[in-house]
Amino acid sequence: MTTFNAVNDPHRRLNPLTGNWILVSPHRAKRPWQGQSEQSEDSVTPSYDPNCYLCAGNKRISGDHNPDYQNTYVFGNDFAALKADTPEFQQQDPLFTLQAEQGEARVVCYSPDHSKTLPEMTADEIKVVVDTWIEQYQDLGSRYANVQIFENKGSVMGCSQPHPHGQIWAQKHLPTEIKLEDLHQREYFERYQRPMLLDYVEQEVQKQERVIVANDDWVAVVPYWAMWPFESMILPRFQITQMPQLSLQQRQSLAEIIRLLTIRYDNLFQCSFPYSMGWHGAPFNGEDNAHWQLHAHFYPPLLRSATVKKFMVGYEMLGEPQRDLTPEQAAQKLQTLSDIHYKRQPK
Amino acid sequence: MTTFNAVNDPHRRLNPLTGNWILVSPHRAKRPWQGQSEQSEDSVTPSYDPNCYLCAGNKRISGDHNPDYQNTYVFGNDFAALKADTPEFQQQDPLFTLQAEQGEARVVCYSPDHSKTLPEMTADEIKVVVDTWIEQYQDLGSRYANVQIFENKGSVMGCSQPHPHGQIWAQKHLPTEIKLEDLHQREYFERYQRPMLLDYVEQEVQKQERVIVANDDWVAVVPYWAMWPFESMILPRFQITQMPQLSLQQRQSLAEIIRLLTIRYDNLFQCSFPYSMGWHGAPFNGEDNAHWQLHAHFYPPLLRSATVKKFMVGYEMLGEPQRDLTPEQAAQKLQTLSDIHYKRQPK
Ligand SMILES: O=P(O)(O)O[C@H]1O[C@H](CO)[C@@H](O)[C@H](O)[C@H]1O
Ligand SMILES: O=P(O)(O)O[C@H]1O[C@H](CO)[C@@H](O)[C@H](O)[C@H]1O
Repeated sequence: MTTFNAVNDPHRRLNPLTGNWILVSPHRAKRPWQGQSEQSEDSVTPSYDPNCYLCAGNKRISGDHNPDYQNTYVFGNDFAALKADTPEFQQQDPLFTLQAEQGEARVVCYSPDHSKTLPEMTADEIKVVVDTWIEQYQDLGSRYANVQIFENKGSVMGCSQPHPHGQIWAQKHLPTEIKLEDLHQREYFERYQRPMLLDYVEQEVQKQERVIVANDDWVAVVPYWAMWPFESMILPRFQITQMPQLSLQQRQSLAEIIRLLTIRYDNLFQCSFPYSMGWHGAPFNGEDNAHWQLHAHFYPPLLRSATVKKFMVGYEMLGEPQRDLTPEQAAQKLQTLSDIHYKRQPK
Repeated sequence: MTTFNAVNDPHRRLNPLTGNWILVSPHRAKRPWQGQSEQSEDSVTPSYDPNCYLCAGNKRISGDHNPDYQNTYVFGNDFAALKADTPEFQQQDPLFTLQAEQGEARVVCYSPDHSKTLPEMTADEIKVVVDTWIEQYQDLGSRYANVQIFENKGSVMGCSQPHPHGQIWAQKHLPTEIKLEDLHQREYFERYQRPMLLDYVEQEVQKQERVIVANDDWVAVVPYWAMWPFESMILPRFQITQMPQLSLQQRQSLAEIIRLLTIRYDNLFQCSFPYSMGWHGAPFNGEDNAHWQLHAHFYPPLLRSATVKKFMVGYEMLGEPQRDLTPEQAAQKLQTLSDIHYKRQPK
């Protein structure tokens, strides 16, 4: 009789943050690929592009001019998905339930330099982005229960603007994903009197099977329940519910771990590695949120190379996410990569 | 004071099948698009391709030869994500939960004709596909609790093979999406003593705001809670939990509604319209499943044209799905399209 072996045998893993399962089919990575290829993003872009809506001093689509900004620059999204002044409305029905939503959407330019994505910025420059995020949390968190900071990087992730930037969508209600994380972290906390993700990070550091890179304050890890091929989380090694509570030192070390993680991502396939990333923390809903632990999710689509991504389609949409390599295999690949960006490595 | 208007104002709608919310931002469709373009699939393909793994008589990647099949042809996926003989294993843990999974993955060629997608087949030809699905449900349903029949159409949906085909992934455990639909349909049934989706289809027929096309047995509708721009469901107008229970007449009328829906899809942007579609019905788990109602989901990615799709990325992955036009607007566009495929329309 053969025994189960997670390196080869199909299995499911549970995401304890959402309660959703992931199907892992490790042997499947061997299949040939004849499907769609993405464009590899490896081109050299100029530091300033006169046609870019986000470069300093340029005119935006709204007609407004960007100021001559020096580090980060935040403005209201010209095509915001949320509006602050939506009239109140609610329709409760067993089948046709609808609620009006109030909110704001903003754009965060990371730097005036059109060519510099996070892995190509210095830790000090990234630290300014972290400080900007914190200011935004403080501002928007005073008016909205949910402040979602995120970045879509690369055209394959729907980013329509190469100038390095992220977004913030703040809103009154908690979105589905936050509701799920809230519920599962609360259940865990009630049971064990400890934040779920603080227990988790400690166990990952002990196991050393999925850790990509770490410093004294932070750990970047491929979660045990990763659905995207090279998905990762950035987890604090200390208890903290919201980003504004970070000390100066922790902001600096956060900037450093973002740099190290994203450099490894770019080095994996020697390209500007696409992803969607974003921060989750306790909502600004005035409740006791001791069960929450601040964390970032990175969802990168590439699977085999700079041009072949994982498609989350038929089975994934109708059943559950499926992955083609184990999280441990993904972590191992990322772990062994250099801390120096491939564009800066001596030839 | 202005009053709320769902045609313009951002709002959220609840998907009663899954309990998840969708953010609707109708005004957002107006923003310009400078991002990634997909390849439009509008080329004329030959009826037989000597290099196709799925054409009748040809050699597959496994070395096997396809028979000289005349209508549909089913075989085991050469790179199956599931295996029947996975050894049993289970790891229960607050954070690291894993279970071995047994299953089978099969490919269903719709026709020996390399060039014929569903909207280009006759209703009689589609009826043979329906019959094949039913045979597969009967076979795999005797061994596995879940039988997921689906199709990824178009390279933008990860389809690596232009020969018209679908897939079946059968497995022992119920995937996340089925678990959610099971739970919410059960709750509704306990409360109202009627299957949720039977009530729903009747109300949609009455309202006539989101119905795309209908016949005596079936209705194709853009659900009130659609997340993809032109998402739809095919719903029976009679009570039925699983596809094998369909009468001969209902199979024929099902083939007809599939034809009419997919023709409208192709006609929308005059291209071979990509989508992932699949069937949900009562699982084969030996339980009382009177709360289940058989239905199909179509998840098409295109948003504005044959080349511009909706990206479900940052906010969608970290918050909840967001859409840029109302389901009513989408339904209206589809509703007014011709029943004759654009390739067959007189010029
Ligand atoms: O089985 P295929 O067609 O090779 O693969 C396609 O469908 C699968 C099931 O939805 C997905 O997991 C793959 O990512 C996708 O490329
Ligand atoms: O706001 P952008 O960059 O124009 O748009 C991008 O991000 C949004 C938020 O994730 C998505 O809803 C869009 O589909 C995507 O193209």
